[in-house]
Amino acid sequence: MAEKKRVIIDTDTAGDDTISILTALHYFQVEGIMVTGGNVQFDQQVENALYTVQVAGKNEEVPVFKGYERPIMGLGENQHRTVEDVHGKDGMGDSFFEKAINSPSEGHAVDYLIETVHKYPGEIHILAIAPLTNIAMAIKKDPTIISKIPHLYIMGGTNNALGNITPSAEYNFYVDPEAAKIVLHSGIPITMVGWEMCTQFSIMNDQDHEDIEALATKGSQFFKDVNKVVMKFNKSVHKLNGTTHPDTLLAAVAANEQIMTKSNLYHVDVETAGELTRGYSLVDVNNRLERPKNVRVCEAIDQKAFKEMVLEVLGAII
Amino acid sequence: MAEKKRVIIDTDTAGDDTISILTALHYFQVEGIMVTGGNVQFDQQVENALYTVQVAGKNEEVPVFKGYERPIMGLGENQHRTVEDVHGKDGMGDSFFEKAINSPSEGHAVDYLIETVHKYPGEIHILAIAPLTNIAMAIKKDPTIISKIPHLYIMGGTNNALGNITPSAEYNFYVDPEAAKIVLHSGIPITMVGWEMCTQFSIMNDQDHEDIEALATKGSQFFKDVNKVVMKFNKSVHKLNGTTHPDTLLAAVAANEQIMTKSNLYHVDVETAGELTRGYSLVDVNNRLERPKNVRVCEAIDQKAFKEMVLEVLGAII
Amino acid sequence: MAEKKRVIIDTDTAGDDTISILTALHYFQVEGIMVTGGNVQFDQQVENALYTVQVAGKNEEVPVFKGYERPIMGLGENQHRTVEDVHGKDGMGDSFFEKAINSPSEGHAVDYLIETVHKYPGEIHILAIAPLTNIAMAIKKDPTIISKIPHLYIMGGTNNALGNITPSAEYNFYVDPEAAKIVLHSGIPITMVGWEMCTQFSIMNDQDHEDIEALATKGSQFFKDVNKVVMKFNKSVHKLNGTTHPDTLLAAVAANEQIMTKSNLYHVDVETAGELTRGYSLVDVNNRLERPKNVRVCEAIDQKAFKEMVLEVLGAII
Amino acid sequence: MAEKKRVIIDTDTAGDDTISILTALHYFQVEGIMVTGGNVQFDQQVENALYTVQVAGKNEEVPVFKGYERPIMGLGENQHRTVEDVHGKDGMGDSFFEKAINSPSEGHAVDYLIETVHKYPGEIHILAIAPLTNIAMAIKKDPTIISKIPHLYIMGGTNNALGNITPSAEYNFYVDPEAAKIVLHSGIPITMVGWEMCTQFSIMNDQDHEDIEALATKGSQFFKDVNKVVMKFNKSVHKLNGTTHPDTLLAAVAANEQIMTKSNLYHVDVETAGELTRGYSLVDVNNRLERPKNVRVCEAIDQKAFKEMVLEVLGAII
Ligand SMILES: [Ca+2]
Ligand SMILES: [Ca+2]
Ligand SMILES: [Ca+2]
Ligand SMILES: [Ca+2]
Repeated sequence: MAEKKRVIIDTDTAGDDTISILTALHYFQVEGIMVTGGNVQFDQQVENALYTVQVAGKNEEVPVFKGYERPIMGLGENQHRTVEDVHGKDGMGDSFFEKAINSPSEGHAVDYLIETVHKYPGEIHILAIAPLTNIAMAIKKDPTIISKIPHLYIMGGTNNALGNITPSAEYNFYVDPEAAKIVLHSGIPITMVGWEMCTQFSIMNDQDHEDIEALATKGSQFFKDVNKVVMKFNKSVHKLNGTTHPDTLLAAVAANEQIMTKSNLYHVDVETAGELTRGYSLVDVNNRLERPKNVRVCEAIDQKAFKEMVLEVLGAII
Repeated sequence: MAEKKRVIIDTDTAGDDTISILTALHYFQVEGIMVTGGNVQFDQQVENALYTVQVAGKNEEVPVFKGYERPIMGLGENQHRTVEDVHGKDGMGDSFFEKAINSPSEGHAVDYLIETVHKYPGEIHILAIAPLTNIAMAIKKDPTIISKIPHLYIMGGTNNALGNITPSAEYNFYVDPEAAKIVLHSGIPITMVGWEMCTQFSIMNDQDHEDIEALATKGSQFFKDVNKVVMKFNKSVHKLNGTTHPDTLLAAVAANEQIMTKSNLYHVDVETAGELTRGYSLVDVNNRLERPKNVRVCEAIDQKAFKEMVLEVLGAII
Repeated sequence: MAEKKRVIIDTDTAGDDTISILTALHYFQVEGIMVTGGNVQFDQQVENALYTVQVAGKNEEVPVFKGYERPIMGLGENQHRTVEDVHGKDGMGDSFFEKAINSPSEGHAVDYLIETVHKYPGEIHILAIAPLTNIAMAIKKDPTIISKIPHLYIMGGTNNALGNITPSAEYNFYVDPEAAKIVLHSGIPITMVGWEMCTQFSIMNDQDHEDIEALATKGSQFFKDVNKVVMKFNKSVHKLNGTTHPDTLLAAVAANEQIMTKSNLYHVDVETAGELTRGYSLVDVNNRLERPKNVRVCEAIDQKAFKEMVLEVLGAII
Repeated sequence: MAEKKRVIIDTDTAGDDTISILTALHYFQVEGIMVTGGNVQFDQQVENALYTVQVAGKNEEVPVFKGYERPIMGLGENQHRTVEDVHGKDGMGDSFFEKAINSPSEGHAVDYLIETVHKYPGEIHILAIAPLTNIAMAIKKDPTIISKIPHLYIMGGTNNALGNITPSAEYNFYVDPEAAKIVLHSGIPITMVGWEMCTQFSIMNDQDHEDIEALATKGSQFFKDVNKVVMKFNKSVHKLNGTTHPDTLLAAVAANEQIMTKSNLYHVDVETAGELTRGYSLVDVNNRLERPKNVRVCEAIDQKAFKEMVLEVLGAII
């Protein structure tokens, strides 16, 4: 256990976030989980995170902290756009699981992150599988953490490809582009896995789902439950023949960089001001802008290896 | 003493901030002072705040907290625009006072604000005489403080008048328009004293300065020292024949609303996206947009009463 | 007659445009009139222009040309905002005058303008009392006219004051800010009379209306007719006690610059990108931006002299 | 000859524009050519267009008209971005051909277009291989042409892919996004061939160039000359192993829609307001915005058929 890397997960726990958390719990020493506003109602997300930790049997070890419920520029009564149509009303494929045993820990997620980074300087890797509000706010509150974070893995944005929430934007960047901008310009070493990696390399088709079901573990049953709604959504909206697993792919890449068969360092930025392009991620593949290369962008995945990792994770939860 | 209202001051302490603090210390029960990035270098501002409290002889009572050094969207190495040309290199009219006895208190200003508002619900009035970063960040971190803040007095913006840092914007709104937007839309009851109130009603001409000097107190000497540089700046840049006291005017209005001889409730908002108008404050005087009226805007001041207040404050510091 | 200056008028003929046209017809050699989209339905405006020329008895001399019906960025079916509430359904105070004898002349207004400027190089002054679409499009189509236009008088924008169509914008700049931007940056010598000049110096109160009525001319009757609706609108919306005459003031200033008792050369620009500030006119009174001074901005009017001019114009139409 | 479709070409003649013009001259009844500001200096482009027509031996038949030299929002002295690095100083691979025999025709390109569309209602197809300034300005000047243009073929934009002038934008849309917006929203039936079609399907590698050279015609020699500089540019900047022929591909698609093996009708729009995304083309492949489908977007090409067309065109110029 001792040699596992320490990570903190930042999640808007719904759907694939759960499998991502299970993956991280399997491969990392997860210090804690931060919840941020995103996919579905905030308190439901907190509950989903707690329940997922419980499924993995890590109740005693892994605290869950509440963070920012809304994007930086979420004003007054305006709610940001949640996506219950993708993940089900409870964000768990309409499984409506029983209430988790644990409650969220005291204190704000951002203070927990700042404190933990200072406690283990250079050791806390961050897995960001949600809008980047919490991470941006931590950086702003205490910029001295920047040099103490060895790496930040972000599921978000696209690399010159179609978005998922609008044609020009991926959901996590779209919900809080100001946060994404703060994080991308922070100086923290970043690896980004964009939405197009997920549509190309993370899809689980019917055969894959059968293979997982054949595991017949608590993990495989949980996987089946939470993916019910997203399967239908992907077929009708994204014209995809299977379920997508962006957050799980991010955790797998962080756990085993070898499955990332192609990547490059590029200048990456995010649009906050456009009329049609709020949340658009600019990836300067040909270095036309000659700006600093701040993000390692994942460009290909060994899909088979990824699936083996998922099978290993789900098979181990018995 | 017991009947004085509790306030917390948020300041980028330089020049007129100091006289504003003295004014607040005279008329209010000042619980604490928060420093935010603005006029001059941050640590100099903290030092200026501590020194000002010392001048008032309130070292033992009034803690100073460090807050956000930079605007919400201040990215990477970009500094926001400081204005040493207005206030002198030290922000104190190039007086280069000796170091203050006290040091800033432990903890982040924003956590101090949140804690204190919850400690005295409905009692903590806020005087905002700086970019609104700290206040916005407090609201975002804990929106439950909103309903517990009875009133927020803001020096900032303009009411359909020329700005001071650009033609379209006043400095405090310009430095952090995202913060201003968050605060204006928060639902907290707000009184705004804009820059045009200061150019019309807060100017101290040569006679006024002589009257203050005639007080021959420690307070009057301090006033003379900190206003050396701004006097020249106002004449050359703003074509104003005297010193301006926006922050002091704000504190005076908060202490004695009677000196505000005209005010109205309007819809007020701030531009964040314009090419020429970043930080512009929209004040919908004729209600053309038919949006909620969220700010009481100060439209006229009893200038004589204001000056008497300043004389009282400076005369009492002996 | 020979010594009168040549002008071309660009108008969205409704309400005060008519009195402005009468004023120009009185004091200038009006070569022609161009109509642009603005106040009310385009064909109604053309009709209003023709009828106004007829009232002045200049049917034979002054052609009316149809120009751009819609702003540069008026897309697809989107109509720009017309203001029948200000000027009446017909733009003539709901007077529903009989049809004009003349018809508009053949050819596009912009081609007429380009041709005429080349025909009388250095002689054609332009009076712009409408959105600046036609003038911008002429400049873009043939930039060589720029150096041949001695002066352009614009009714539009505000000088750091409240707008009339939104809090931040005056109507003519708001309807087509891209056109305003093209014109302001063209290099043509410009005098601008902003909306705040009109609310301060062009207002005709009840006594003024009585004085005009006492003329008992065809001109005074026409004035009375077209101002019926705007009188009510100004009282209810702009809290103004009388009728405003922005376009007439512009023509009067052009005819007799002596009535402009204060003016200065400033850098003037217009916002096209803001969320709240589309059409905002930046006037850099204190030269904070240190950009080229491109516009002479009218800052005060001899109101008495202006009214005498109006009385002279209306008295002469018998 | 009689059964050939009538077209008008709008071009910023440099590099591949010339081969595109030769292609159009081969397959269509080209009524005329309009030049717009774009790739290189305007007068050089006009010269290049004239010379290209001469190469094809159509001097007597095909007039060349000068249009807008600069984008709609090209202000004052600001030049738009020309790309001599891509096409050579003369836009012809630094071939510095002798001066063309013909001169451009009298009249403005936009008036020529309007007149010709009205002359042959429903017959004039437009090939747009340049920034869309001329076409937008024609639409604005006379919207009644819209219903008389049967089809507009546009080389421009990208379909959720990397741009060529910035990461987010293709050159033609980037130079004049306001024009692109006007055209896309006009209601004219449009086929768009984006930059990613060109990098995927229009590339001519060394073998292709040898095949062309083997034709040993005046046409093949001309092709060789004009492609000298772009070959090097594509290798170093776009990492492409060959020359790209976006404009020729557009003409080929218009001449023979069968080579377009995949296409779909989508909502397409262009960003004008973004900080990083000016000129970005939004293509709503999954109809997430549920807006009108206004553009048929080319999604695949029969590359072999395309090359055969080019060989046929160049082989016929002897
Ligand atoms: Ca997630
Ligand atoms: Ca201050
Ligand atoms: Ca008008
Ligand atoms: Ca071209």
